[in-house]
Amino acid sequence: MLLVLKFGGTSVADIERIKNAAAIIAAEVQKGHKVAVVVSAMAGVTDQLIGYCRDVAPLYDPREHDAVVAAGEQITAGLMAMALQQRGLNARSWQGWQVPLRTDSTHSKARIIDIDAAAFRQRIEEGEIGVMAGFQGITNEDRITTLGRGGSDTSAVALAIALKAERCDIYTDVDGVYTSDPRIVTKARKLPRVAYEEMLELASLGAKVLQTRSVELAMKYRMPVQVLSTFDNAIGSDLPGTLVTDGDDTMEQNYVTGIAYTRDEAKITLVKVADQPGVAAAVFGPLARAGINVDMIVQTAADDGETTDITFTVGKADLDRTKKVLEDERKKINFTKLLAAADVAKISLVGAGMRSHPGVAATMFETLAEKKINIQVIETSEINVSVLIAEEYTELALRALHTAYGLDGK
Amino acid sequence: MLLVLKFGGTSVADIERIKNAAAIIAAEVQKGHKVAVVVSAMAGVTDQLIGYCRDVAPLYDPREHDAVVAAGEQITAGLMAMALQQRGLNARSWQGWQVPLRTDSTHSKARIIDIDAAAFRQRIEEGEIGVMAGFQGITNEDRITTLGRGGSDTSAVALAIALKAERCDIYTDVDGVYTSDPRIVTKARKLPRVAYEEMLELASLGAKVLQTRSVELAMKYRMPVQVLSTFDNAIGSDLPGTLVTDGDDTMEQNYVTGIAYTRDEAKITLVKVADQPGVAAAVFGPLARAGINVDMIVQTAADDGETTDITFTVGKADLDRTKKVLEDERKKINFTKLLAAADVAKISLVGAGMRSHPGVAATMFETLAEKKINIQVIETSEINVSVLIAEEYTELALRALHTAYGLDGK
Repeated sequence: MLLVLKFGGTSVADIERIKNAAAIIAAEVQKGHKVAVVVSAMAGVTDQLIGYCRDVAPLYDPREHDAVVAAGEQITAGLMAMALQQRGLNARSWQGWQVPLRTDSTHSKARIIDIDAAAFRQRIEEGEIGVMAGFQGITNEDRITTLGRGGSDTSAVALAIALKAERCDIYTDVDGVYTSDPRIVTKARKLPRVAYEEMLELASLGAKVLQTRSVELAMKYRMPVQVLSTFDNAIGSDLPGTLVTDGDDTMEQNYVTGIAYTRDEAKITLVKVADQPGVAAAVFGPLARAGINVDMIVQTAADDGETTDITFTVGKADLDRTKKVLEDERKKINFTKLLAAADVAKISLVGAGMRSHPGVAATMFETLAEKKINIQVIETSEINVSVLIAEEYTELALRALHTAYGLDGK
Repeated sequence: MLLVLKFGGTSVADIERIKNAAAIIAAEVQKGHKVAVVVSAMAGVTDQLIGYCRDVAPLYDPREHDAVVAAGEQITAGLMAMALQQRGLNARSWQGWQVPLRTDSTHSKARIIDIDAAAFRQRIEEGEIGVMAGFQGITNEDRITTLGRGGSDTSAVALAIALKAERCDIYTDVDGVYTSDPRIVTKARKLPRVAYEEMLELASLGAKVLQTRSVELAMKYRMPVQVLSTFDNAIGSDLPGTLVTDGDDTMEQNYVTGIAYTRDEAKITLVKVADQPGVAAAVFGPLARAGINVDMIVQTAADDGETTDITFTVGKADLDRTKKVLEDERKKINFTKLLAAADVAKISLVGAGMRSHPGVAATMFETLAEKKINIQVIETSEINVSVLIAEEYTELALRALHTAYGLDGK
């Protein structure tokens, strides 16, 4: 069985942890598996290198930025190969350009085009452990690129696909995917399995276990991904973490698989906008051109029958810029008032079972009403229901919903 | 005029110094020169990375070692390109593999085979500043190599040769080559010019301004090299440092150009070795096979007419190993006693003028005798005279000789 094992920044934060990760890899080899490894930079190194870039040139050239920050993964890849050799294993490091892992030229958030893993695979077949530097690739012009924050997850899944691996194991500082954030919901349970589409929703709705793009890629190629801890239960146990894979019957025991949340959004309401065709374009066109991502959108008719209120959310970091863009367009959009609130939280139920059980949201609304929590915005998709509430109720809402949907563990 | 400017570790030790170096480069561009830049790792970074390697695996794989430590220069190259862009200049970084700079596969002390600088030169001709990461290259199998300590000097000279540059300027933390170490000999003077062969002797005899290999390379291709300070007199002045170039008449004013010293050697004496053919091979063969470099060698007949004493020096770090190798071979070599001393210093006069003035050494012997300094070993070559003395006399000897040969400045 060929496995790709990926170790994140906290799993290779110092020499001791690199040696610990090497022991985990050795245990997989011991079981008879062929192994490829993908490593992140040692925790803190990427931030330090980004800091250098900012200090040199606040508006830095992203091509040079990528050349600088890719050094972090280069270092870990070499050290990991040495740590494996030190255990008597045959291993070597591979930089993105050596594989090569080709990307487009969107520097600092490049997308993978292709991994030509023939040479890499050949040596794995010969019993060598290939340690690939995560996060980095090269363009067709041989310039170094990086894949964006958390990009090593995507590197690992892409390598697993290119190698036709059996599975991609993501070793991190949590031991799996939980029904909700265990730091808030003490009764949260670790999920043994999650469907790709659920994981995708959980990741994009605030669960920080996996980079969203890595889940998209895994889903597209049906590559099983396992999330597990470097520190707790890794050596010797089978499937000790959470397996992200195709949905199946066993996952529909609960309609709701997990409850995610994020405090990273802010709410904007445009009051009394003229209710006529083209108004949405007038609002959201300028925001898109300014590179501002809009998430939840609701539009409600005002009682005068001629105007409408438009409410939507943007990233908190974009709030001031959003207000400015809209004020600049005030005449064209023609609104009476602009209301903005940063003290909101978005709570999301996720579950593939919702698809066949359309009444799931009702329990959410009742539960929040019982706790006197006002719902500001509602948004639903096939497999999730999200509500925006006042930020101060976040913990209360999470715990109440976790109980209401029968997710509590013992 | 096309110049290669090289900045050492202390010249790029932090962001402020990188910006300062960028200002120096900008001043050269301002004068109308086309410019290529070679950078070392930020001071301390290489040592940190080597420390990581040792901590992971004391007997590390030199291929992985090179992948790890090359990251230091990669970072500086990117940051320097940004710093130049920040000044409105067109610049980009080039890693060893991007140029490419091909080396043999002697990892961690690789020798340059070839620089295919066509693409690099093309962009310089178009007005872009190329910033090459020093110290690193790739093998024909595309593995990363490094050139050994101080290797960025060699990178810079090699790039200058490949680009057919007018000159290679080495910016460092001293402002030139001195007649002797100014920290000891306060009357030492900066030399405006030094001949290649003199610089080669000075570098290999202990002066740490330039890597010996870089001087060999410059001499072979007659590439003028200028040593100058990043901190003092760099911007705006013409030829403010020391120019290393072909010898000419102006340099023969003094027979002695400079006085170097090293405390890095230790002395071994084998007492009463049978004086017969093959004895030198019996002594130095095993040392060569053990990878121990031997420097000064003298052999003196004992008064019995049948035995001889052999004295030689090795690096202090190799002293214990040397003793062990010789004791193991004691029967074959057939010596009476082995004497070892680590408290010695080697003092060397260097000057192309010696060639035409064979009596130069006499002044040295007289001067040392006057100061009651005993000479333990003497070695001469065409353009240098070296003596081994007790280490405690180092400063006294340097100052006395500096005065005796008329090198003192005002």
